[in-house]
Amino acid sequence: MTRSWWGWGDVEQRVGDAEAAELVSRAAALLPDHDFTVHEPPSPSSLSVASPRVALPTALEALASTEVTDRLAHARGKAFRDVVRNLEGRVEHVPDIVARPRQEQDVVDLLDWCADEQVAAVPYGGGSSVVGGVEPRFEGPAVSIDLTAMDQVLEIDRTSRAARVQAGVLGPHLEDQLRPHELTLRHFPQSFEFSTLGGWLATRAGGHFATLYTHIDDLTESMRVVTPAGISESRRLPGSGAGPSPDRMFLGSEGSLGIITEAWMRLQDRPHWQETASVTFKTYARAVDATREIAQSGLFPTNCRLLDPMEAFLNAGISAEGGVLVLAFESADHPVDTWLARAVAIAESHGGEVQAKRDAGDGAASSWKSSFIRMPYQRDAMAQRSMIAETFETACTWDRFETFHAAVTGAAQEALERVCGIGVVTCRFTHVYPDGPAPYYGVYAPGRWGALVEQWDEVKAAVSDAIISNGGTITHHHAVGRDHRPSYDLQRPDVFAAAFAGAKRVLDPEGILNPGVLLG
Amino acid sequence: MTRSWWGWGDVEQRVGDAEAAELVSRAAALLPDHDFTVHEPPSPSSLSVASPRVALPTALEALASTEVTDRLAHARGKAFRDVVRNLEGRVEHVPDIVARPRQEQDVVDLLDWCADEQVAAVPYGGGSSVVGGVEPRFEGPAVSIDLTAMDQVLEIDRTSRAARVQAGVLGPHLEDQLRPHELTLRHFPQSFEFSTLGGWLATRAGGHFATLYTHIDDLTESMRVVTPAGISESRRLPGSGAGPSPDRMFLGSEGSLGIITEAWMRLQDRPHWQETASVTFKTYARAVDATREIAQSGLFPTNCRLLDPMEAFLNAGISAEGGVLVLAFESADHPVDTWLARAVAIAESHGGEVQAKRDAGDGAASSWKSSFIRMPYQRDAMAQRSMIAETFETACTWDRFETFHAAVTGAAQEALERVCGIGVVTCRFTHVYPDGPAPYYGVYAPGRWGALVEQWDEVKAAVSDAIISNGGTITHHHAVGRDHRPSYDLQRPDVFAAAFAGAKRVLDPEGILNPGVLLG
Repeated sequence: MTRSWWGWGDVEQRVGDAEAAELVSRAAALLPDHDFTVHEPPSPSSLSVASPRVALPTALEALASTEVTDRLAHARGKAFRDVVRNLEGRVEHVPDIVARPRQEQDVVDLLDWCADEQVAAVPYGGGSSVVGGVEPRFEGPAVSIDLTAMDQVLEIDRTSRAARVQAGVLGPHLEDQLRPHELTLRHFPQSFEFSTLGGWLATRAGGHFATLYTHIDDLTESMRVVTPAGISESRRLPGSGAGPSPDRMFLGSEGSLGIITEAWMRLQDRPHWQETASVTFKTYARAVDATREIAQSGLFPTNCRLLDPMEAFLNAGISAEGGVLVLAFESADHPVDTWLARAVAIAESHGGEVQAKRDAGDGAASSWKSSFIRMPYQRDAMAQRSMIAETFETACTWDRFETFHAAVTGAAQEALERVCGIGVVTCRFTHVYPDGPAPYYGVYAPGRWGALVEQWDEVKAAVSDAIISNGGTITHHHAVGRDHRPSYDLQRPDVFAAAFAGAKRVLDPEGILNPGVLLG
Repeated sequence: MTRSWWGWGDVEQRVGDAEAAELVSRAAALLPDHDFTVHEPPSPSSLSVASPRVALPTALEALASTEVTDRLAHARGKAFRDVVRNLEGRVEHVPDIVARPRQEQDVVDLLDWCADEQVAAVPYGGGSSVVGGVEPRFEGPAVSIDLTAMDQVLEIDRTSRAARVQAGVLGPHLEDQLRPHELTLRHFPQSFEFSTLGGWLATRAGGHFATLYTHIDDLTESMRVVTPAGISESRRLPGSGAGPSPDRMFLGSEGSLGIITEAWMRLQDRPHWQETASVTFKTYARAVDATREIAQSGLFPTNCRLLDPMEAFLNAGISAEGGVLVLAFESADHPVDTWLARAVAIAESHGGEVQAKRDAGDGAASSWKSSFIRMPYQRDAMAQRSMIAETFETACTWDRFETFHAAVTGAAQEALERVCGIGVVTCRFTHVYPDGPAPYYGVYAPGRWGALVEQWDEVKAAVSDAIISNGGTITHHHAVGRDHRPSYDLQRPDVFAAAFAGAKRVLDPEGILNPGVLLG
């Protein structure tokens, strides 16, 4: 497989002609006047990428790549605006060097050199950031430190169900190494194939479980982090009350405090029992009520994904006026039919109608799953055809959800109409908590080639304002990066930001670590 | 009710003559030579307590108390070594002033004054610290800032099941205010009656739930903290991935960064269904295996308390060679018999024998519960009779538990024999996680009046060394305070400590906040 330098995932998995024709015909039915001309990515060699301004010292030379495509591939993440800029051949901030440490000491040496030479160090895992987290969007030289050569499971503790894992491992390779032990992390973000453990930890990634263990934070037993001020390693502890959690300072620090090299992760037994059901509703309000009651029931479904009517229609091929709730329970210990039955009963008490089992198996859940994996590839294919296709995500408490959702979708719709003339906004809950949902919005609209980034940025600014002014978080699991900075700065307490900056000054006195994310 | 200045809880609930006689007769049967002479606490007025070295300014005078008993009551927490020092009439560090803010602005003004005058500010909730957390153990003047006048539930969000609560509320008063809304925090530490929400948050208290929502951290939606650098207020969010969690920096900060004035707390519906069972085992090793499998089952019992044979005998009146596992499930949503049946089946697969239901109701669980509430009072009564009775608690991963437990109990036993000639060590699991238990140890030994504190300190030093060198945490939920500092300094990563100190320098540039806890 060959990783795409400009778009999502592997080149070999790109949307093919038949899949593209199907996508275009569906879109064209709604948008007869849209220009679906395909824009192919430029050849990297045709782009005027400046030569590296710095070079690693001889001792570290073997870790370095200055090949242009490699540098371009490390210049941006995989947001819609990243992919479009790549397609347009816009060269902006490109790291001078891509360095691939093979062991922890290499990371120490690289950071030492960066501090001495005042070169920014941008940690890079799978590069799937959709918030500008890996983009050296600043003046001055930068090294992209790509951790993917450090990809081993180093130790397994079967008794406690935990493993010590190097941070650069990609999702599938991690699971491959755990499978012989009948263990699994069961952390499956949409980026699973193209993101690393270290990336998940640094960005507080959201995973497989819709309830309970939603963020990678909860699966983390201890961490090892290289900082310019030394290595921080926390104890392996199942729980502790000894001061503020050291791990929680590094979780979500997005490379601004150090580079995570290893972590002990809490694992699961591989599930033997799984039960799913899809429930349709007549009204979205009742579907939300049902979802809330299930989230507060203590049943803890593995999946509790409420698709709004448009999401259900577009991505699961189901027509339901009030949307579809996809429920799943799993266990390695016991049958989960009692659990599912109670969750379904709650849904029914709110007017939900369970879809026939065969539909559930072959229908909503699995259609949705396959489109989940294909979505980013399809997003790229549509971007090549001047279609805006992007997502944003948040969380808020249940009491304000109705107002919040109306404000956010209203702002999105208004902006789309202003900017693109027309557009569609969809919503699903990726995670639900006893005190609120994490809604994930999809935006689809016809754009104009050459203006796509600016068009999207205008829509994004409108929805971000609505999210912040209505009490949500600018990100539930995509992280802050550089794209979310204006909203994040309004959201986090100033006093906390000042304290965090104080901590950073101690760990990164030269300010070399991922400048521009979170602070600075 | 009248709070005791020298010992646990309310004077009116002290151990009476009959209860004392019973305790003494049980102890005397084992310790025929012990001197059970009762030592009554001194009269506060008989103690030479120095006059206050500072006085609050006129504007804050109404908040101040300089009454000697009040100052003595705020001079120490309620550890065994605190109570004994009180009984012995040892006057050491006494706050110059007790200040009782009535509103948040009072807290702001008090901290401003402390910063200007270089007076230490020691936050005080219910005063139940057992780690020296509220003791002004330093030179220089100190104000004990007692938050208990700020004790109101300010707002209820029934939909999201959350409440905005002032930090100074004591456990029972909090539950009284939530009950009309059919909501409950269900956070019941042993100190429940005499500890506050703010104290729980500042010390990462452990609560009612043996699994899942064990620490108060998990029940916290947002916090408001007054620091010398301003007020930090986080957003109410059910989950977020926007940078490191601001709340997690303040949770466990033990008053070193600021004073928590309010928090939005996640609540529970009051449970309608409850099922309990007590299971006895032939060997402790198999009991531990059963407990581990239940902890890893995904069943999430509310209670999963493994009492070792000595703990079961002393505190639940049950003889079982391998100990007793007390299981409970509860729900406001659904019957929990399926859950309990599976947990019991797991226990039985490890050789467990379920006790008859009536025994479970009237027996282990309830005996244990009533002794749980009385324990601290009985501890005081025995301390008055020169008996060492104290606890310590920790957590470790399952893989090392056997070695860890042997080392810790061995160290305790060896130290007791060296220091006291004889002694008993008991163990229960207060909380269990998929990756390890939180063992809670009890120590009972005959001491020598006048030497009790030094005797206990010697035992404690031995067990603390064993905990740290065998990979445990010096505290799972009692906090660090001043007593645990030497061990904490070995446990937390140095790099984290340096970063935390950097954060503190920003929030508390004058270093007035609870000097000596966690750092400094």
